[in-house]
Amino acid sequence: MSLPFPVLTPEEAAALIQNNQTIGFSGFTPAGAAKAIPKALAVRAEAEHAMGRPFKVGVLTGASTGPSLDGALAEAEAISFRTPYQSNPVLRSQINKGQVRFVDMHLSLLPQVARYGFLGPIHWAVVEACDVTAGGGIVLSTSVGASNTYLRLADKILIEINRKHPPTLLGMHDIFEPADPPARQEIPIYGVSDRIGAAMCVVDPKKIAGIVYTDLEDEAGGFEPPNPATEKIGQNVANFFVAEMRAGRIPPQFLPLQSGVGNVANAVLAALGDNPEVPNFEMYTEVLQDSVIPLLESGRCSFASTCALTLSPEAMNRVTSNLDFFRNRILMRPQEISNHPEVVRRLGILSLNTAIEIDLGGNVNSTHVMGRQMMNGIGGSGDFTRNAYMSVFSCPSTAKGGKISAIVPVVSHMDHSEHSVQIVVTEQGVADLRGKDPHERAQLIINNCAHPDFRQQLRQYISLTKEGHEPMSLSLGYSFHRHFLRNGDMRNINWDEWR
Amino acid sequence: MSLPFPVLTPEEAAALIQNNQTIGFSGFTPAGAAKAIPKALAVRAEAEHAMGRPFKVGVLTGASTGPSLDGALAEAEAISFRTPYQSNPVLRSQINKGQVRFVDMHLSLLPQVARYGFLGPIHWAVVEACDVTAGGGIVLSTSVGASNTYLRLADKILIEINRKHPPTLLGMHDIFEPADPPARQEIPIYGVSDRIGAAMCVVDPKKIAGIVYTDLEDEAGGFEPPNPATEKIGQNVANFFVAEMRAGRIPPQFLPLQSGVGNVANAVLAALGDNPEVPNFEMYTEVLQDSVIPLLESGRCSFASTCALTLSPEAMNRVTSNLDFFRNRILMRPQEISNHPEVVRRLGILSLNTAIEIDLGGNVNSTHVMGRQMMNGIGGSGDFTRNAYMSVFSCPSTAKGGKISAIVPVVSHMDHSEHSVQIVVTEQGVADLRGKDPHERAQLIINNCAHPDFRQQLRQYISLTKEGHEPMSLSLGYSFHRHFLRNGDMRNINWDEWR
Repeated sequence: MSLPFPVLTPEEAAALIQNNQTIGFSGFTPAGAAKAIPKALAVRAEAEHAMGRPFKVGVLTGASTGPSLDGALAEAEAISFRTPYQSNPVLRSQINKGQVRFVDMHLSLLPQVARYGFLGPIHWAVVEACDVTAGGGIVLSTSVGASNTYLRLADKILIEINRKHPPTLLGMHDIFEPADPPARQEIPIYGVSDRIGAAMCVVDPKKIAGIVYTDLEDEAGGFEPPNPATEKIGQNVANFFVAEMRAGRIPPQFLPLQSGVGNVANAVLAALGDNPEVPNFEMYTEVLQDSVIPLLESGRCSFASTCALTLSPEAMNRVTSNLDFFRNRILMRPQEISNHPEVVRRLGILSLNTAIEIDLGGNVNSTHVMGRQMMNGIGGSGDFTRNAYMSVFSCPSTAKGGKISAIVPVVSHMDHSEHSVQIVVTEQGVADLRGKDPHERAQLIINNCAHPDFRQQLRQYISLTKEGHEPMSLSLGYSFHRHFLRNGDMRNINWDEWR
Repeated sequence: MSLPFPVLTPEEAAALIQNNQTIGFSGFTPAGAAKAIPKALAVRAEAEHAMGRPFKVGVLTGASTGPSLDGALAEAEAISFRTPYQSNPVLRSQINKGQVRFVDMHLSLLPQVARYGFLGPIHWAVVEACDVTAGGGIVLSTSVGASNTYLRLADKILIEINRKHPPTLLGMHDIFEPADPPARQEIPIYGVSDRIGAAMCVVDPKKIAGIVYTDLEDEAGGFEPPNPATEKIGQNVANFFVAEMRAGRIPPQFLPLQSGVGNVANAVLAALGDNPEVPNFEMYTEVLQDSVIPLLESGRCSFASTCALTLSPEAMNRVTSNLDFFRNRILMRPQEISNHPEVVRRLGILSLNTAIEIDLGGNVNSTHVMGRQMMNGIGGSGDFTRNAYMSVFSCPSTAKGGKISAIVPVVSHMDHSEHSVQIVVTEQGVADLRGKDPHERAQLIINNCAHPDFRQQLRQYISLTKEGHEPMSLSLGYSFHRHFLRNGDMRNINWDEWR
């Protein structure tokens, strides 16, 4: 049955979008991102610029996107405003030069903030789908992100139907959008696999301005294989959880896991899967990476609720060639639901996130290098950490070949405070900060998590702080960072230089 | 009907408590705190110390308590560990000298962290009540705090029946404790006045080791009357809310208010009550102060859900002499429920909290003076702010007669990050940070909220930062604080001193 919507080329679709408009794109780290239309929009922006005309748009997404969206639009200098998360090198550079206004946001908050009108009008929703119905039903592809909200709020809609993704993805999404206060009810998820919404988004078909057919792989970045440090971190986390189960502080049936993105997260998942004392577990998380697919196949992971399937083409093929199996084991939810504080706290998530640096008070920097340079964004880490049953942050104890300590006196930017960070893990060991005051936390972090090369220097810092509830020195708090910026190395501080 | 529990003197009750035990006391800012037993326990500790024997206990409460609990025990040097919040000068000094281990905690998290076993065993619950039944029913007095959880978890229970509070407070409490994961269900509050639990706590009567009869006023501290600065802050908040309603970003029926404690909070409530364009409103908050009582009487506030009635004896008399009226307009809930992220986000709270200092990125310090000295604690501000429909932080733009700017380049301690702080208000004006990037936020905060005496100096700071997503200088970030510590004044910085 043919669809009653104009079939457009990407260029024709891009031509509909005007300078200064705000677009809500599909795409979550970077699964299911619109690809053809933003790429064509970048070409259009360059043409406009060549003719001396301004052309920039506001770009809202679920989370990060790939080269075809953030990459192409950034290279064309076509982004005026960006939220809530990104990971593209060109865009990152523009953000850090002040050329693009970037608002870093808790991912669960984005949809409601858009609905409340705090981000202004949303002119376009541009989403990737695997199927569309004549009545306005849209089966999303490999992520939900905030697409359901953008589709409802936007004045007009453009859809990329990506033939790479089979229409039989139908049934893998669970589309639920809460009402706004004062009419909001509960999010009725009581178990990881509870289905509470619809299999597709439904929009007023009159809003659909056109459809573009594509046949494009998702642009998921590869991750490095585990190294000895990340493997040790994984084992440390797994052993800690086992000890907590034995002590009765994690229930015997275990609790659902949330895991961040990247190599450390993959190593932790692998170690949990390998540990015979960890029972089969469920995941309630925002991103599924390749490492979860074999765990689902083996039954070690019995169900995974996610916002996105961030899979390599090979892993995605494993899923699509065995959809009857995976449709009963994976559910994709909007980021408002996958990350919702209410659900995270109710289910009692064990949250596992990674840090750029961690300070002696137990505060975490997830976003800014040396306090100024944005990496990617806070993502969902705050949604999960604050509301978790138990929150774990991990990272290797050093970076840059040992020249940078991930354990610093004071983080140069703070995303997660001491109030939310319970367990710190490096390849050196585990610091259990629960019920510990700031001075005890500092000792545990130094002794158990800091690299031996930095322990003495961190203890010297403590000894140089004045009396107080927090071991904090306003003159020396950033001494590790400042010494690094001057010498290219955090080691061998001369304290007198900074007092 | 006489009760089947031993009636004890405070001294006899205190004699049951052993060195090194952990006690969960009633008391919330500081309503409903146990008073006679902790005071007697302080005397016992002093006697033990005089005999050369160690005697210290771990003190858990709902929130801050008065001179009879934190004050007396601190003076007796009888506190080893304290959580989650305090405001007593003697205890504060001991905390800042490192003599008492203090863990500052989000108030909503305390009960579940205690249940999960993260704080170790709780040997005693010592709670104030207005009535007790022979079967183990306990009608709490002027707060709930975490008493319901302590009563259930503790090995043994001591009860102060305070005759100052009439047993007809029965019906003003709503006792509800969620199950722990994986069995937790929703918190079924959909409107501020929804009653979801029981009117009294019920315990195994065998756990009740004794009852002490008292006749003592609550030790609520007085607040200063509004001054021109706090009045202007209140008007700025009220006018901002009215403008947001007109713009359609707050629904026409308004939304429930949460308001912090203190003079600024009182001034804001008074201004909202006085503003004819603000509809009659409900409160979903953790503390009711005197200022709310006339608003309830006049109908301007139609219902108030709280954790505590922090009232002067005069205001408390107004309530108890008109209980039939107030029982339909006030509900006291456990802090786990009054501050629950699930409920705060569902109801769409407008949160109003106060800051010690606010930085150019929009980060807030609620707790530590000059980064080291604990004031009181984070309290419920994080529970409400992170999950609010709209979050407001306010404070006067200066302190110490103009020598200290509340707007600083970088906060010396961070409790609430830029991700959670939407609106900043001082007597100077309002900075609306929603959808603004860090550089825009800095400009808005300087232009609209900083005191004119500091605007130029804050702009100079910005001009001295290097390129980056955040206007952050590792060398100059704390320059205002360091200049103050050296010169007793934040004004007239010589930048070269700190580079």
